[in-house]
Amino acid sequence: MDRFVIKISCPDRKGIIAAVTQVMAECGANILDLTQHTASDAGTFMLKGEFEVPAPFEIQAFEDAIAPVANEFEMDWQLFNTKVKQKVAILVSKTDHCLWEILLKHRDGELDCDIPVVISNHLVNETVARQFGIPFYHVDYSVGKEAAEERMQTILKEYKINLVVMARFMQILSADFTRQWVNTVINIHHGFLPAFKGAKPYHQAWAKGVKLIGATAHFANEDLDQGPIIAQEILPISDKSSIRDLVQMGKDIERRTLLDALGLYLSHSIFVHKGRTFILR
Amino acid sequence: MDRFVIKISCPDRKGIIAAVTQVMAECGANILDLTQHTASDAGTFMLKGEFEVPAPFEIQAFEDAIAPVANEFEMDWQLFNTKVKQKVAILVSKTDHCLWEILLKHRDGELDCDIPVVISNHLVNETVARQFGIPFYHVDYSVGKEAAEERMQTILKEYKINLVVMARFMQILSADFTRQWVNTVINIHHGFLPAFKGAKPYHQAWAKGVKLIGATAHFANEDLDQGPIIAQEILPISDKSSIRDLVQMGKDIERRTLLDALGLYLSHSIFVHKGRTFILR
Amino acid sequence: MDRFVIKISCPDRKGIIAAVTQVMAECGANILDLTQHTASDAGTFMLKGEFEVPAPFEIQAFEDAIAPVANEFEMDWQLFNTKVKQKVAILVSKTDHCLWEILLKHRDGELDCDIPVVISNHLVNETVARQFGIPFYHVDYSVGKEAAEERMQTILKEYKINLVVMARFMQILSADFTRQWVNTVINIHHGFLPAFKGAKPYHQAWAKGVKLIGATAHFANEDLDQGPIIAQEILPISDKSSIRDLVQMGKDIERRTLLDALGLYLSHSIFVHKGRTFILR
Amino acid sequence: MDRFVIKISCPDRKGIIAAVTQVMAECGANILDLTQHTASDAGTFMLKGEFEVPAPFEIQAFEDAIAPVANEFEMDWQLFNTKVKQKVAILVSKTDHCLWEILLKHRDGELDCDIPVVISNHLVNETVARQFGIPFYHVDYSVGKEAAEERMQTILKEYKINLVVMARFMQILSADFTRQWVNTVINIHHGFLPAFKGAKPYHQAWAKGVKLIGATAHFANEDLDQGPIIAQEILPISDKSSIRDLVQMGKDIERRTLLDALGLYLSHSIFVHKGRTFILR
Repeated sequence: MDRFVIKISCPDRKGIIAAVTQVMAECGANILDLTQHTASDAGTFMLKGEFEVPAPFEIQAFEDAIAPVANEFEMDWQLFNTKVKQKVAILVSKTDHCLWEILLKHRDGELDCDIPVVISNHLVNETVARQFGIPFYHVDYSVGKEAAEERMQTILKEYKINLVVMARFMQILSADFTRQWVNTVINIHHGFLPAFKGAKPYHQAWAKGVKLIGATAHFANEDLDQGPIIAQEILPISDKSSIRDLVQMGKDIERRTLLDALGLYLSHSIFVHKGRTFILR
Repeated sequence: MDRFVIKISCPDRKGIIAAVTQVMAECGANILDLTQHTASDAGTFMLKGEFEVPAPFEIQAFEDAIAPVANEFEMDWQLFNTKVKQKVAILVSKTDHCLWEILLKHRDGELDCDIPVVISNHLVNETVARQFGIPFYHVDYSVGKEAAEERMQTILKEYKINLVVMARFMQILSADFTRQWVNTVINIHHGFLPAFKGAKPYHQAWAKGVKLIGATAHFANEDLDQGPIIAQEILPISDKSSIRDLVQMGKDIERRTLLDALGLYLSHSIFVHKGRTFILR
Repeated sequence: MDRFVIKISCPDRKGIIAAVTQVMAECGANILDLTQHTASDAGTFMLKGEFEVPAPFEIQAFEDAIAPVANEFEMDWQLFNTKVKQKVAILVSKTDHCLWEILLKHRDGELDCDIPVVISNHLVNETVARQFGIPFYHVDYSVGKEAAEERMQTILKEYKINLVVMARFMQILSADFTRQWVNTVINIHHGFLPAFKGAKPYHQAWAKGVKLIGATAHFANEDLDQGPIIAQEILPISDKSSIRDLVQMGKDIERRTLLDALGLYLSHSIFVHKGRTFILR
Repeated sequence: MDRFVIKISCPDRKGIIAAVTQVMAECGANILDLTQHTASDAGTFMLKGEFEVPAPFEIQAFEDAIAPVANEFEMDWQLFNTKVKQKVAILVSKTDHCLWEILLKHRDGELDCDIPVVISNHLVNETVARQFGIPFYHVDYSVGKEAAEERMQTILKEYKINLVVMARFMQILSADFTRQWVNTVINIHHGFLPAFKGAKPYHQAWAKGVKLIGATAHFANEDLDQGPIIAQEILPISDKSSIRDLVQMGKDIERRTLLDALGLYLSHSIFVHKGRTFILR
């Protein structure tokens, strides 16, 4: 048996689920898991379904069968074969707690993807990547952002990357770059967005005397720290905490939030609509 | 348009969703929300669906149409008309924080049910019930549990009650009683079950030095504090807390957990299988 | 025995605690609870101590004894007799969930203060206040903010109020007003400040697709929603939530956060320094 | 300057803090941080204080000065030089997520201790220990628990170990062993104690349908999973989670709870009294 995930979003109308499941039934699919939500505040229908089919599955036949339905309901839809692993590239600078988290969990089979490449603007994490048998590329930013990004694009293409994860990558990607990777670059910001955008969010949080610190994983776009939010977590803090304490405690929620976002992406649970995400677990 | 909720559970097999949604489509139903889960550790399929139909809906026709499907898949299924409000009776003793919570939220339209009656083994909360225009019955336990419960059963039948909520009712219902109200009596226990069963859970928690206190809403059955768990919440506590502090802080999570459980019941989100619940939000 | 709380803040130096506790010992005080923090990021020492003394306590003698120490260390200090209850006024508009919460908990002895007066710009909550035997004043804002605030000031003075609690009071206090009540007006904002300042924070949160909603209790000052933060809480939310759901769920964290802040104030746990609070529990 | 931490516990009486801080002042100590709690439900006074003294500090003089005070108040007291790092041994079996967490955080300077040795009943984690330059000992349990524990005791003595951390060590220590290491062996249990003692707690939790999973770090004693609780955390879970999901999600709270407990130990924040801990942060 092969296993597929289908994602659909379209304007809300009557009969979408019946029409879609009918096509699936006709193609011999057994639906294992189906979750659906109509965001009535936005008038949008979203559906994620997982189904089994006897191998070999005639994808073309399925696509032919669903085409008129998709057309009728003005659907955006995507089909994913769960056997085909997403290819994820990691961008990292010097700070390595997110990198270790991803690589250790991946080694333990807790991240359903391939990680064919680690890219960094520093050399220090090369040994970490190599320890897990992953090719490491040093991209020198001293040659200028444009050239550096061009080099990264080349590497990403070479490895046929689907998703870029900024695991504490301390360079801002250009608008030119993010426009080529729409909703496929995940960044971790060490603050509870939309508060504390930009640099030194823990310093900002301490000065403001907030009682909770947070981390936010979001898709990177041309507006710094403004892309669609994927996952957020917070930690209550004592006012006895120093800025240094906040930085240290924050590392745990940063990696946890980033991993949560990555898991949601890999399970095809993220829908983006009107500049925000909807997560269908 | 009328709006219905259907709940289905059955052994997991292929094609259930397609078969059910097909019947719905044929009956002119527009599915608004559908959530489904297959508990593979238990081999059980569960589905909750909400749909709209043009009024008047021919329920008999729908039942006739779904009967062969239900039979084929060995389904347990229930259909709820969202216009028909569930009738909820509240049992309460002296402590009133859960009672106030339910009545205030009900007044604000946040609980989709009727509350036709409040029953108590004490007189003290009569004025609270009357303030919200709800009939209040004092059931005297000094005549013995059997007679008292018989009296309660009479009242519950008179008001055609669907669900009984023990909002801090300090009497243990007999096995005879709970057997007549299977999965339709919700109790709030002021501890994180299965730890701290029985009396004085906050004293137990303090003596044990736990770092979190909890509350558990569960269906009452013949085993004290052992019925299927519906909702649980916890609160981190400082070791500077006295037992009295724990009792006071606990009140907030008790009422919150009880209200959460009540909301889940009223939205038909609770499935019970093999002695535990599965909540499909 | 009488019981007192002393609060001290001053620039950090050597020997402060020994000097202070020495004075206490000489005055026959038995320290029951002492918590202290030096915010090294701000160079500030803060201490809260609770002590018992044989009645009648010679306050003047204590003040005479501590004066040279206070002078030497440039201390700000305050002494509170725990027998003298703080007088708290409640400002409320139409929304009543925070009002009920305060009055019910006060009735249960969970708030160590007097609540001699409730003030509102609407008439609707008069019956609630009266039910708890508390005088209610309707202050008509149609005569203009200046006149309305003048009337409120008169009432607050008449009742010798120490603390003003804005329990969802939907008027912005003027800078003129808040300058007379520095760090003695607590407001509850239904958003996680500093994000989502101003109107309709739940609409802002939904549009942004945040995964947590929050509430913030803070001292009101001339900058709208910018005063020192006292307490904050959050609630994880599902993306299946509508704006209406957020508003409803938010009510619970609003009242909880406001009550938390009120309790911290009444226990003299709030220190304000350089525009932020430090909470010493 | 040298920095010391003093821990004191004794029956609650008047004047303890003044007497102690007086001694400190006389010895030239500058108190940096002092936190104290009187557990009135247990009649016990506890104090943790951190102070600076000009080096070299005459410890003997301090001990001589505090002796009569300690005697008078029947104090248990301990003095720690913060320059002298605690020596921590790690016991681990095959599962390595807690081991990595400790070693990476230790490398980053976030754990104020020495880790001179890792001991395991398996060989698999030898490379991990060596990567951080830490001696690794394989202790073979096939020779019997008694011989294996004797071997471990020898190693622990050789390395002058102060604290043993069971970082998912899947052997039960004998009562004979734990009696020699009272309140100096920290174990991580992957359940919310006192619920779910013993084996396969996630299986128990799933079968019971709890809505939260937890982890508990506690001192090991002769009663399995019954020693004084140091730290606890929970994670809300969806009922769509399989047992496998619980195990995976649990790993994160296990390591976090264990690290929290270890940090509390190293900062001398744990008091044990009447079979439970009191944490003074």
